[in-house]
Amino acid sequence: MSEHVFDQAIALSSQGDGLWAGQTHPAYANMVGPFGGITAAQVLSAVLQHPQRLGDPVSLTVNYCTGVADGAFAVHARPVRTNRSTQHWLIEMQQQGQTVITATAVTATRRETWSVDEEPMPTCPAPDQVALPAQSPPLAWAQRYEMRPIAGSLPGVWDDRGDSSLTQLWMRDNPPRPLDFASLTALSDLFFPRVFLRRARLVPVGTVSMTVYFHASAEQLAQTGTGYLLGQTRAQAFRNGYFDQTSQLWNEAGILLVTTHQIVYYKE
Amino acid sequence: MSEHVFDQAIALSSQGDGLWAGQTHPAYANMVGPFGGITAAQVLSAVLQHPQRLGDPVSLTVNYCTGVADGAFAVHARPVRTNRSTQHWLIEMQQQGQTVITATAVTATRRETWSVDEEPMPTCPAPDQVALPAQSPPLAWAQRYEMRPIAGSLPGVWDDRGDSSLTQLWMRDNPPRPLDFASLTALSDLFFPRVFLRRARLVPVGTVSMTVYFHASAEQLAQTGTGYLLGQTRAQAFRNGYFDQTSQLWNEAGILLVTTHQIVYYKE
Repeated sequence: MSEHVFDQAIALSSQGDGLWAGQTHPAYANMVGPFGGITAAQVLSAVLQHPQRLGDPVSLTVNYCTGVADGAFAVHARPVRTNRSTQHWLIEMQQQGQTVITATAVTATRRETWSVDEEPMPTCPAPDQVALPAQSPPLAWAQRYEMRPIAGSLPGVWDDRGDSSLTQLWMRDNPPRPLDFASLTALSDLFFPRVFLRRARLVPVGTVSMTVYFHASAEQLAQTGTGYLLGQTRAQAFRNGYFDQTSQLWNEAGILLVTTHQIVYYKE
Repeated sequence: MSEHVFDQAIALSSQGDGLWAGQTHPAYANMVGPFGGITAAQVLSAVLQHPQRLGDPVSLTVNYCTGVADGAFAVHARPVRTNRSTQHWLIEMQQQGQTVITATAVTATRRETWSVDEEPMPTCPAPDQVALPAQSPPLAWAQRYEMRPIAGSLPGVWDDRGDSSLTQLWMRDNPPRPLDFASLTALSDLFFPRVFLRRARLVPVGTVSMTVYFHASAEQLAQTGTGYLLGQTRAQAFRNGYFDQTSQLWNEAGILLVTTHQIVYYKE
């Protein structure tokens, strides 16, 4: 069985002492440089593969300091504090000796406790009842995902007449791949920029910072397998060059796997 | 005119090269150690006072690696990447040579663009129509804030019968103090842990990571002045030791100043 292209894209080779070498993968290319979600997954991979890692991801914040260029990069992951059940990480990605990404992560061993999902999965048609779009965006990374839009697709006409930024869609890797923390991280960045939808206008954009809170356990990810995730996202404010995006990802069983947020630069 | 206690609490003395010395302030003491919001404000202050700072805060993520102890601390703020209009920061707080806080921030010069608030301010009675609570929590920091609860107060009886984590309240510094980025950061952490409300049960808790997205400009903060902020918060998921909290802060004029998120450890 050949390796999934996602695994090729997040592959890192250890240089020792928490330092890893990797490179961008053309299969996840964006308009310019790589898809931000694959970069976030590479950053998390440096933590996941670290020999001193304690537990599974609880929180990840990735700051996009500048555009990541196509080609080689180095990632350095350092556990700055290890407690009894939690561990705090600083991660930095460099290209040509310059910092292109900073990130922090928290991993933890989790025990079963009283639990409840307060944000209910919205009522939506099942994945097989939602058609694939007639055409998908002409971006390499978008071909790596199966996206079945339920509400809030990209406008067919760019007429400056949008009125809501809410999008709901079913999504998974294409071809399907069993869900894990790395792919869940990439999927957390799958939503196109809300300003496109709200304005019905294409403007230059770029994610500045993204935070992912992992509610799911490794077991819940394994149970999700190659099933679809229901993604929901919307903006709360667009103000003078920056807007936020707040999102949830559920599995088909209705378990909230991730809540995630980002702040995105936009021009005009 | 004497200095406001908040300014005393966030005062830092420069040790040169982005290194600052400060100390916790008893007026903002929590159950154990300081209120997390004042710690976040101290972290941001190290950026705000940095001679190389470009622009105003857009994003701040603070990771609480371990309990901050009462007493002295050092904060180191380093601009890791400065672009034309944005700047990325790494910040670390240490006590006794050990990392207690890691943080990242983005500052930016912002230009006027097309803007819209998508998340509307909820309809609420005016601040002067909302009574102060009969008693406030017996914590020093809680006395530093005027909180007028509209919905979702702490339960009067801890009977394990909560059913929602939503809280809305009017809030401001006590005594009133003109709003700025540092105080807005502290106010972003004002909400008591959602698990108390949802479970109607007191359990051990601690914020692990908090992210603040600043939508407001310095001018909008100045216009807000000593007015009240409407704070709204709720959890999306409580799962095996960690829950999230997602919050918005508006000024009385209905402008969304901040959207903020945190992930919180809870026991049992």
